[in-house]
Amino acid sequence: MLTYSVRRSLLSGQFSMFKTLNHMCSAVYVQLDRGRCDKSGGETKEEAEAVLALCADRGYICHADSESWRRGVSSGFGPLGAELKRNLLEKWWDSVVSSRAHVFGISSPSCSPDKTGSGHVKKIDTKQIMQILEQPELSREQIIKQVNSFLRTSQALRTNFFQGALEQFVPSSELVNRKLPFGLAEHGLCFRGPSCGWPDTVTKTSLVWFCSPRTSSQWLDFWARQRLQWWKKFALSSSDFSSRDVPGEDLHLPASRGVKIMYNFPWGPESLEILWSRGDTELLQAHNGARSKLHCRDGQKSVPHVITVTANMDQGVMAFLFNSLQQQKKEGSKRKLHQKVLKLHPVLTPIKVALDIGRGSTMELRQVCEGLLQELLDSKISVWPGYLETMPMSLEQLNARYDEMGVLFTTVINENTLENGLLRVRSRDTTVRETMHISEIKNFLSGYVSAAQHT
Amino acid sequence: MLTYSVRRSLLSGQFSMFKTLNHMCSAVYVQLDRGRCDKSGGETKEEAEAVLALCADRGYICHADSESWRRGVSSGFGPLGAELKRNLLEKWWDSVVSSRAHVFGISSPSCSPDKTGSGHVKKIDTKQIMQILEQPELSREQIIKQVNSFLRTSQALRTNFFQGALEQFVPSSELVNRKLPFGLAEHGLCFRGPSCGWPDTVTKTSLVWFCSPRTSSQWLDFWARQRLQWWKKFALSSSDFSSRDVPGEDLHLPASRGVKIMYNFPWGPESLEILWSRGDTELLQAHNGARSKLHCRDGQKSVPHVITVTANMDQGVMAFLFNSLQQQKKEGSKRKLHQKVLKLHPVLTPIKVALDIGRGSTMELRQVCEGLLQELLDSKISVWPGYLETMPMSLEQLNARYDEMGVLFTTVINENTLENGLLRVRSRDTTVRETMHISEIKNFLSGYVSAAQHT
Repeated sequence: MLTYSVRRSLLSGQFSMFKTLNHMCSAVYVQLDRGRCDKSGGETKEEAEAVLALCADRGYICHADSESWRRGVSSGFGPLGAELKRNLLEKWWDSVVSSRAHVFGISSPSCSPDKTGSGHVKKIDTKQIMQILEQPELSREQIIKQVNSFLRTSQALRTNFFQGALEQFVPSSELVNRKLPFGLAEHGLCFRGPSCGWPDTVTKTSLVWFCSPRTSSQWLDFWARQRLQWWKKFALSSSDFSSRDVPGEDLHLPASRGVKIMYNFPWGPESLEILWSRGDTELLQAHNGARSKLHCRDGQKSVPHVITVTANMDQGVMAFLFNSLQQQKKEGSKRKLHQKVLKLHPVLTPIKVALDIGRGSTMELRQVCEGLLQELLDSKISVWPGYLETMPMSLEQLNARYDEMGVLFTTVINENTLENGLLRVRSRDTTVRETMHISEIKNFLSGYVSAAQHT
Repeated sequence: MLTYSVRRSLLSGQFSMFKTLNHMCSAVYVQLDRGRCDKSGGETKEEAEAVLALCADRGYICHADSESWRRGVSSGFGPLGAELKRNLLEKWWDSVVSSRAHVFGISSPSCSPDKTGSGHVKKIDTKQIMQILEQPELSREQIIKQVNSFLRTSQALRTNFFQGALEQFVPSSELVNRKLPFGLAEHGLCFRGPSCGWPDTVTKTSLVWFCSPRTSSQWLDFWARQRLQWWKKFALSSSDFSSRDVPGEDLHLPASRGVKIMYNFPWGPESLEILWSRGDTELLQAHNGARSKLHCRDGQKSVPHVITVTANMDQGVMAFLFNSLQQQKKEGSKRKLHQKVLKLHPVLTPIKVALDIGRGSTMELRQVCEGLLQELLDSKISVWPGYLETMPMSLEQLNARYDEMGVLFTTVINENTLENGLLRVRSRDTTVRETMHISEIKNFLSGYVSAAQHT
């Protein structure tokens, strides 16, 4: 399999201006990638903490407490992390919903009456419990009874999207004229009790796939393959993503079989996504066993089997952050042997280009930057307004900072640009500096990101 | 001001194939729009219920209980409503975040420790209260004390994004080198207690804008104008959207002034979005009065003033549904005088095109449809797979159904298409049928939606 860097250099090769330089660089990159894999095995706790510290410094996460992240307790994302998560969720939606005819996006309520009595994470108006406790005439037993009854009738917070999808099965199957297979997809917040050792909330993606019983096994394999490919597509080192079968007993359902997609964090493998073939038990339960309502047109009047595909996208963001950080050997510099580069995939990386100014009249250069910035934003290219920075910084320091932020390209606009419209564009991944005309940069960037998306 | 229909026909005019027909039609549409405005004034409760019933039938909302919707208690959206909401949130993000240099997307936690003790909607693990209640050795007073203390330390569910943004002010201002103005934006779920008479959860959008004290009044006006324009841009009858000033006392803050953006529902005007100029009180509170941390580089070392722009997007979806439904006079048909057309704006409407089959070999026609469907989905054009429908339906019935669903274009593929590649494309807004080659349809649809976006 081609490494990501090689694929990147191949796709860049579509742009003639980068062609020769990329061919020159690709050999170097294969070596660097191999270097990374060797190191990966011996990566220690300290190294994990160094990655987290960098992510916190560069606005990806709020705190660099490695113990919390290991336990999956997300302390929240900074502005760059929030944008990375947005991009990741958008790519998931494109892959699972927008590009498929038989998957519908749904929007299930985040809290709902606790019909089964099994939900214990609830949304409570604490004022109402206080009111019960403050009634002096109530005895100990009456207080217990009233609080219990209040808790029982309170709304349960969703811990997954599964029940919501099961409830929407009947109207959705009408949409496709009761033809199988079809899927219902959603992403958003889910809640957990503190006792689970999980974070309080987690951003999940969910696909619930309904298919005929005889095809459910193939569909599980199909989706497991698809999802693993999706994770690997955006990886720098794709071998850190893997899948493994899970024994069906874990789910306590007779017909169940599962597949987990794992990421190999420095502290060990963690599950990012889990796929279950769950049979028809829960679909029947959700509709009180009304088989006739659930029959689909597959010739055999059977109740559909259900496959769930659920990912934890907070964990997914962390996987890509760990996966993308590369220690790069800097040649010709004795002072600093290694430079850290956050090589997030071009479509995922939160900032596609940084605009900086070099020598020249600051006022005039800033005006050019403002104009270019708006042009790029209008084309939905995310820009870092580096020209606002007034702290003096060498070009080396600036590049090191942008590399750590994962900024894909850096441009410097200087007095030359004012004269002839030319500016310098530096690539994060090749470190090569190209000169191009200011009028070309928008199309160059759109083309680069869009090409990366389709490889 | 041009009505939406006229604007639509003007923009369609960019495509030569539609040019002549649109010129013919635009006069008719001005009349129809005027007809709608007259009727709007006398719209009764029954008519509101008819709109909701149609929205429920066509998969936009889950239940058509008008009393709940009036009280703002959303019963949830169906697949088409969920997609409409997605489109609306995406356009909001494009307008407020992606196209602006100084607005950053953030992601604040949905539940957090209740520092101020003012939060009363909380996430509770009910098992833990049960454990307290089940201890036989505890007296009445001990139970009250322990439950109280447990409630106090439980996590509060967010009711808005304001606190989250205030907390991210310092690291974010570092990003822009402490230069004002800048904004922090977010959208997602917020919670409410049942006592508020509000729905349990609501999808909100939030922009928190930090600016220098002397410019805060202008910025409030700027954002109020921008936001009203945004709502009107997607409206069919833009006069139903309006803004009005709100007295500052409503917020109990000395420096406050507000603007509400209203939609004129059949049952009266309701607020969709509210903008507040709030002074610096809350920013100072959130940072324990540490003024020096908050100073920005505006020459005067002052603490920034804060403007909040908060919309209820569930209500926004309902506004556009009510706004877009048009009763259209059908000429030449005695049986049915009025036809309902859900004229959602091309960029908002959940389904851009429906694929249906006419006379010919069903098997072969379906194959053509499958191919075309995948091609359209790959270009991110949402498609309705009407060819899966096996219930016999006249073309008139089919069009009526698609018009009610707000499907922008309908295509029929028949035996002619197999011979010469030509198919018929019907426009929802003009009801005109055009013949075009199957290879042209993808570019035609992308072009149409993209042109609608930029007018």
